[in-house]
Amino acid sequence: MATIEFWYEFASPYSYFSFMRIEPLAEKAGATIKYQPFLLGPVFKQFGWDTSPFLIFKQKGDYFFRDIEREADFYNLPLKMPEQFPIHSLLAARTALIGFEKGWGVEFSKAVYTKAFGEGGDVSNKGEIAKILESLNVGDVADILAAAGAQENKQKMRDVSARAIELNIFGAPTFIVGNELYWGNDRLEKAIFS
Amino acid sequence: MATIEFWYEFASPYSYFSFMRIEPLAEKAGATIKYQPFLLGPVFKQFGWDTSPFLIFKQKGDYFFRDIEREADFYNLPLKMPEQFPIHSLLAARTALIGFEKGWGVEFSKAVYTKAFGEGGDVSNKGEIAKILESLNVGDVADILAAAGAQENKQKMRDVSARAIELNIFGAPTFIVGNELYWGNDRLEKAIFS
Repeated sequence: MATIEFWYEFASPYSYFSFMRIEPLAEKAGATIKYQPFLLGPVFKQFGWDTSPFLIFKQKGDYFFRDIEREADFYNLPLKMPEQFPIHSLLAARTALIGFEKGWGVEFSKAVYTKAFGEGGDVSNKGEIAKILESLNVGDVADILAAAGAQENKQKMRDVSARAIELNIFGAPTFIVGNELYWGNDRLEKAIFS
Repeated sequence: MATIEFWYEFASPYSYFSFMRIEPLAEKAGATIKYQPFLLGPVFKQFGWDTSPFLIFKQKGDYFFRDIEREADFYNLPLKMPEQFPIHSLLAARTALIGFEKGWGVEFSKAVYTKAFGEGGDVSNKGEIAKILESLNVGDVADILAAAGAQENKQKMRDVSARAIELNIFGAPTFIVGNELYWGNDRLEKAIFS
């Protein structure tokens, strides 16, 4: 059974689309999904970018905001953009790492995406992440947030960033199947049925 | 009947894929194609780029060279990259403008793409463009090349660049249907059946 590594960033609407689409596709393909939340920040730093390229390159950004509307319609997914873009996704990503250790990483990630891009909520906010954790009933929220912010978990997040750079990942979502890397929600089907 | 404006750049393999795919799709959709060869150079200058982003952002470039191989396989199109990348596409684009005035713009463009990316030929070379024109039997080659290089045609090319920038085009291929702009070979179907 093939494994598809799914690298996703909570600040990325195209990652949101893939997250909401990947499960049935993987089932159909008989593929196992290895979920990997990561941060684009350290990756973009290599290019000299200190924010989203959609803010740096205005034309691309204008296009992006229209394209994700059309794509959301196409996939029949709700889309409401948060007021702040890009989202600060560090806390969500660190919490997701804890989630994958504990067995609730997938449902947490899905809830974050639904809040962020389905409802336009502010998931950079600790209170919002706490509410999501509460609603999922996955344990003591204060303990989870403490674990997310602990040195050990911060180091894990840095290791993920280092690995992303090592793998030449340059955007999100990224899919890795064997030695092949695929970039973009547009490539999900090609990656999974490769 | 809907019209799809097809903005393509001779230096762009993804434009090549779209060029080779667009005709049957347009026929199926009952759409009219308005072919528009253009240059990415002036567009990229706005971003401070003086060459292809695939050379500026190494990781993206490495990915690109692999991705176009996979895409060529997927579309069952021949792919042999020219030794020089990016191609200097100015002469081909200027000649194409003359072609569209005279009624052989489509077949000329197709022949340039076949030479450049199907066979890895050097279409930045005047001799290569002359050979293509000869093979198409579209008139006196010296006259055509003179018209391509004439002030009037150079100005036309500059006007095309200005219009691309005005339309917020930032990459190739780009498709425009009504007020909607679509970027990338991946969006061809969505543009044409929109």
